[in-house]
Amino acid sequence: MSGPARPTSHASSKAAVLDVIRAAGTISRVGLITATGLTGATISTVVRGLIEDGLVVETGRAESTGGKRRVLLQLDHSSRYAVGVHLDHAGITYVLTNLGGSVVGRISRPGAGAAKPADVVARMAGEVAALVGSVGIDRERVLGIGLVSPGPLSAATGMALPPPTMRQWSDFPVDAALGQATGLPVLLDNDATAAALGEHWSGGVDNAATVAAIYMGTGIGSGLLVNGIAYRGASGNAGEVGHICLDPDGPQCWCGARGCLEALAGPAAVVAEARSDRALAKTSGLAGRRTRSVAADFAAVSRAARKGEAAAVALLERSARYLAVATRTLANIMDLEVVVLTGPSFAIAGAIYAPILQEELDRAFFSRANHAVRVRLSASAATASAIGAAAMVLQSELVPLHHGLRLQGIEPEPVARVT
Amino acid sequence: MSGPARPTSHASSKAAVLDVIRAAGTISRVGLITATGLTGATISTVVRGLIEDGLVVETGRAESTGGKRRVLLQLDHSSRYAVGVHLDHAGITYVLTNLGGSVVGRISRPGAGAAKPADVVARMAGEVAALVGSVGIDRERVLGIGLVSPGPLSAATGMALPPPTMRQWSDFPVDAALGQATGLPVLLDNDATAAALGEHWSGGVDNAATVAAIYMGTGIGSGLLVNGIAYRGASGNAGEVGHICLDPDGPQCWCGARGCLEALAGPAAVVAEARSDRALAKTSGLAGRRTRSVAADFAAVSRAARKGEAAAVALLERSARYLAVATRTLANIMDLEVVVLTGPSFAIAGAIYAPILQEELDRAFFSRANHAVRVRLSASAATASAIGAAAMVLQSELVPLHHGLRLQGIEPEPVARVT
Repeated sequence: MSGPARPTSHASSKAAVLDVIRAAGTISRVGLITATGLTGATISTVVRGLIEDGLVVETGRAESTGGKRRVLLQLDHSSRYAVGVHLDHAGITYVLTNLGGSVVGRISRPGAGAAKPADVVARMAGEVAALVGSVGIDRERVLGIGLVSPGPLSAATGMALPPPTMRQWSDFPVDAALGQATGLPVLLDNDATAAALGEHWSGGVDNAATVAAIYMGTGIGSGLLVNGIAYRGASGNAGEVGHICLDPDGPQCWCGARGCLEALAGPAAVVAEARSDRALAKTSGLAGRRTRSVAADFAAVSRAARKGEAAAVALLERSARYLAVATRTLANIMDLEVVVLTGPSFAIAGAIYAPILQEELDRAFFSRANHAVRVRLSASAATASAIGAAAMVLQSELVPLHHGLRLQGIEPEPVARVT
Repeated sequence: MSGPARPTSHASSKAAVLDVIRAAGTISRVGLITATGLTGATISTVVRGLIEDGLVVETGRAESTGGKRRVLLQLDHSSRYAVGVHLDHAGITYVLTNLGGSVVGRISRPGAGAAKPADVVARMAGEVAALVGSVGIDRERVLGIGLVSPGPLSAATGMALPPPTMRQWSDFPVDAALGQATGLPVLLDNDATAAALGEHWSGGVDNAATVAAIYMGTGIGSGLLVNGIAYRGASGNAGEVGHICLDPDGPQCWCGARGCLEALAGPAAVVAEARSDRALAKTSGLAGRRTRSVAADFAAVSRAARKGEAAAVALLERSARYLAVATRTLANIMDLEVVVLTGPSFAIAGAIYAPILQEELDRAFFSRANHAVRVRLSASAATASAIGAAAMVLQSELVPLHHGLRLQGIEPEPVARVT
């Protein structure tokens, strides 16, 4: 047994204090002692450093409770910014967030499609510059870019096993390329993990201790949060809910296995069935038109279902029942409290899926005698991944340890425990 | 968002130092600084406290490397002891371990069977006293009892949803009863989680960052370790691999769902099939005999398979293929590096299961482009849960925070990160 133990670094106290201030809005030093469990001396030192770095400002005093009125602290929201980029086949979403995690700028542009990765990266660099320029902030205050994309990542080559629609990105060092093109540090992560963090920063997960954000775009993934911290696993690829096996002899999945949720009931499977049903293909607007993207076609089927088209409703309900069973498996493994449905393909269809998932979890979640699993629909399904990508940069800058995250796989310190 | 943030407590430094000393055997203060990342001043303070408490002793000096020879520290292994009790339908295993986690006494006694919980607890109290007495240690040095059992736990009533064989334990406050009968503090946990910790303390998991110990006794469960720390989930019931759904329309499981791994391919399913095959029932010694216990009957089928009985081999290989698919799902969710097969039902059959699991993970684990998942057979399959139960007590005593574990669900601090 060898290798260094986890350092109990000073940075973690700093990050814990910052996260408490962020969540509280304003808070006194005494409040920080209570909320973090750190000593008064540590809080004094940490707060002094944060003020010197310009991250935190003093902002008046609390109402008196008898004694001396306490000085309140808050983040200087405009002291730092980060760019979040969500790169997908069907679209690229960019957000600029401030230190508090609020979105101060956002643009959506065409996806990677079939273009060469190098060309897409060159375009992305221009779009990042345009976003930052349009908001009119000091570029020096932009800490870096969080870049998130589908599928497993590898430390060596970026996307190790991208989904079929992005196969040409395999072995392309996308983070290094974007870093070079923009001059900004780039953190690369999984879009589903980012979505979970985005939901947490947006307040969408009830501050539960164990949360899965199920992300449906072209495929189905999930991001896992434990006490507000992303659980990443050995290589940053935990939570692959789309590749939960629901039938060992089922249809072949692109990942190499059989009977995966995604192959049985993911957006591509739903769209293929909708196209094979002549009447439904017509009413949903798919007939006679080439596939634009799976996500766009899935949205068309979802809109037909929302209008009450029975065949579309039946298709989505069947998909939802498979997802409900896979979510039960996920909940049984992680002992979850909250499941939030996010990502563009839930933006329209989520209202059909949520009650079916809730019913399944109420009926058959293994630990239902102890606690329920609550299913939530995201309020920011289309942008959660980009917001989470920016949040990762803010966290990583605040906690130097986090720069090694992509290599380490496991979150080394609790930074996002919110009070 | 409210509730206290995670305290960065002094206890965690103490626990980290202790765990490093335990894993290293002997180590100098300078070595502790390197291994823990703590400052020299902190190490001095913590080590002084540990020596005053009698947990650590100075033990000569390291060989000179030119300068002053460094004083070496090691645990005083006989300064503290803990009892681990693994309570199951088919048997009760007791171990007494010292502060280093070494087993200094062990007994096995008949299981809970159909006896009244109160009667079983009275017997257990006598058996604990006999074990401690037989080893001849000072009873004052026994910190407490770690009690582990199958199935989900609840803070209010002990076993919230025990498996069918232990249904009469539902709502019986087993930890309080055993505490009263013995006069020792009792920590209650899941036997699969304990098995994982037992494997970690026994050195069976290669110091990997993400580990699942798949536990097969009467049922199938798993304990999950992240950096040597048990991942417990919201209510201490994470890792329910036996209730991964492999067929949404499959056979009814006792848990209320359909198509669970345990219903399709667990020991009870294997035994039922073996009994229905007249020839196999005869050669495996099941024919004409009433079921003693599922675990004993499963062991009989396993022995027949190990002797080359083709029908028994086929049955276990079929069970192993289901378990392999469920393990792939578990690995895809947790992004695992190591799977260790433990528990009494793997003690004989593990050699048949392990290669089938390894083949499935090599072929179809989602992140196989990044890293392999290694399958290991436990060297202490029959006692890992009891060892882990005792380890929990040692950890909890060393880290006061851990006393709240059963209620909190989530491990609050890294204590078992081994270097």
